[in-house]
Amino acid sequence: MTVTLPDVQQAHARIAAHIVRTACAPSRTLSAQLGCELYIKFENQQFTASFKERGALNSLLVNADAVRAGVVAMSAGNHAQALAYHGTRCGIPTTIVMPRTTPNAKVEATRLLGAEVILYGSEFDETLKHTEALATQHNLYLLHPFDADDVIAGQGTVALEMLEQVPDLEVLVVPVGGGGLISGVACVAKALKPDVEVVGVQMARFPGAYAAFHDKDVEARPASATVAEGIAVKAPGVITTQMMRQHVDDVVLVDEQDVEQAIFDLLEIEKTVAEGAGAAGLALLRRYPERFTGRKVGMVLCGGNIDMMILSSVLQRGMVRSSRLVRLQVEIPDTPGALAALTSLLGELESNIVDIQHQRAFGGSSVRATLVELVLQMRGEEQHSSVTEVLEHHGYEVKQVL
Amino acid sequence: MTVTLPDVQQAHARIAAHIVRTACAPSRTLSAQLGCELYIKFENQQFTASFKERGALNSLLVNADAVRAGVVAMSAGNHAQALAYHGTRCGIPTTIVMPRTTPNAKVEATRLLGAEVILYGSEFDETLKHTEALATQHNLYLLHPFDADDVIAGQGTVALEMLEQVPDLEVLVVPVGGGGLISGVACVAKALKPDVEVVGVQMARFPGAYAAFHDKDVEARPASATVAEGIAVKAPGVITTQMMRQHVDDVVLVDEQDVEQAIFDLLEIEKTVAEGAGAAGLALLRRYPERFTGRKVGMVLCGGNIDMMILSSVLQRGMVRSSRLVRLQVEIPDTPGALAALTSLLGELESNIVDIQHQRAFGGSSVRATLVELVLQMRGEEQHSSVTEVLEHHGYEVKQVL
Repeated sequence: MTVTLPDVQQAHARIAAHIVRTACAPSRTLSAQLGCELYIKFENQQFTASFKERGALNSLLVNADAVRAGVVAMSAGNHAQALAYHGTRCGIPTTIVMPRTTPNAKVEATRLLGAEVILYGSEFDETLKHTEALATQHNLYLLHPFDADDVIAGQGTVALEMLEQVPDLEVLVVPVGGGGLISGVACVAKALKPDVEVVGVQMARFPGAYAAFHDKDVEARPASATVAEGIAVKAPGVITTQMMRQHVDDVVLVDEQDVEQAIFDLLEIEKTVAEGAGAAGLALLRRYPERFTGRKVGMVLCGGNIDMMILSSVLQRGMVRSSRLVRLQVEIPDTPGALAALTSLLGELESNIVDIQHQRAFGGSSVRATLVELVLQMRGEEQHSSVTEVLEHHGYEVKQVL
Repeated sequence: MTVTLPDVQQAHARIAAHIVRTACAPSRTLSAQLGCELYIKFENQQFTASFKERGALNSLLVNADAVRAGVVAMSAGNHAQALAYHGTRCGIPTTIVMPRTTPNAKVEATRLLGAEVILYGSEFDETLKHTEALATQHNLYLLHPFDADDVIAGQGTVALEMLEQVPDLEVLVVPVGGGGLISGVACVAKALKPDVEVVGVQMARFPGAYAAFHDKDVEARPASATVAEGIAVKAPGVITTQMMRQHVDDVVLVDEQDVEQAIFDLLEIEKTVAEGAGAAGLALLRRYPERFTGRKVGMVLCGGNIDMMILSSVLQRGMVRSSRLVRLQVEIPDTPGALAALTSLLGELESNIVDIQHQRAFGGSSVRATLVELVLQMRGEEQHSSVTEVLEHHGYEVKQVL
């Protein structure tokens, strides 16, 4: 129950014709910012926009006899789409079980790829039990999203390609959920180049693999949500835990805000869409740049499936962090023309008004005053300071609201 | 004063080592949606995120003697960054003149690339005059953004690569501003494969090249703004007009909304960031799919430099168009508990509340009623209809607000 380099090489020979050999491209701008030499493996350019196709397809091909009658899996995410796509392409009936709360967009995307989608249960265990029951009942092959040798061997092909594309990589940074990807990547890296460091990154809110790797107890936070739901896995698998302990050098945690900023930077600088899990590697590099200074780092951008509503929020929150969107409360006299005076001044200062609210009953210092709350577009911290300064110089009382 | 295939081939030999050979990759999902076989040339993956580097670098290399003392250009956009980057890289002093209203982010980006940036004037003609004066005064080489043989030859290398990467393309769809890119692309295409159709796409709000190509008078709309400011050029050049008339098959207009939707689709489906001009080609394909049915189409995604604030708005407007964000006005009794009843019902219907406003003085049908305006997240048109239906069934009066 472990995976070795030849397993991954065979997997690659098996799947290569039906998987995109994604680019592993240097990012000069991010390299300059981080002080390392950064290469990004763009697994968001797979057809279903994640590396999960590699493991799913390898498993389907290795178990050709067993899957003939059909395959079943529980997943509301990238594993579902990967399996639906390759299962259908290979003529294998594919059933995906999803929790009943799964967003319709994901259900539809998976159906469009040819799978039968069954919505069942609202809790992980309930849905899993139903999936297992279906497998037994209809003699379907149950495909685990990470804790299976064939799946791990498939995911390992990511590292095989990276070390072919950029042979002198010194560090590999890999997002960790259940541990399938990093187990495959690490076993390849250590076999081909034992001195390559393999670092896993996980969300502080879902530190299952971190805890298993470091043998720490961590508090379960069952109700917490994360922007990186693709790696929000309660606990790693049996095989993956053993393989991580054997091959991985470290697993490190990052926070929600780190990942949001990384999604923002990948959009603005790399012009590419990363889901939370896909941006986790960059979040780690940004948080601990000193660890990677001067080194040649390969980062797996493992997926690009992010809800457009979430992406829009990430963008706006990024604008707020970089003072390109600023919310100010300004007190003005409650008289005709007072608002015109304020907005004219803001116009002269070349700050665009995005949103404005005028409050009378609450918050003013006098019955003759009224509080205006403005959301302003700025060019950054410098303009923000100078606008505040000029407003105060004109006698306005200004308060920033976060 | 024209450009031929050998000029472009020589340009390619000159610049290839310092330009990214961007992928020309098939899009299976968009192909299926459009009914054609679509290939996308990802020029947003150039270092400064647009094709403009090709023409700028070729011009610098061809005019090596003339540019030694320095080069100057007027641009607030991709031409500025392209020239700043390659000028600095080649050790040529580079001056960029921008209108005083240029967003700071663009000024800073250009400065970071090593150029001296001069802010001057608020109108095109004023800034241009100053640029010309600077050139004369300091004996600097004035590099035109599109109407110059060397620039056109450089841009033509895009087509050279596309026809090497996908030799059997039948149509090339190219965004048009001043006409530099399409002139280079069309002269290559017609020389290599005379039966390739070359179609330009321009914004209805800035139809300068469209008018020149079709010999039509179009009303100037000087005050209008566009999401595709990269191709918002008043009029094409002398050389480019002649070359377009000679080699281009058609120039077609698209609207703002077409381009917004195309930016959205490229993000959601292709996981890539396109600026307005970069998405114009897809906008055309979506608008007139019947023109391209069954054909092998190469589309130039010419740039990815879009303001993150604009991108965030494009995302939200896209959500509204696809009924994933819906604004409803609902009348409720003006009594304690009434809002709780409404919001509980929406919770049961699994529609997330994004924004809520409670209006008393305006709009209610009775003094005992109050109007609640809700922005709701939906899974799409289907859920939108069913939510409205259930609310009405519970006796609420519901009105959609656009």
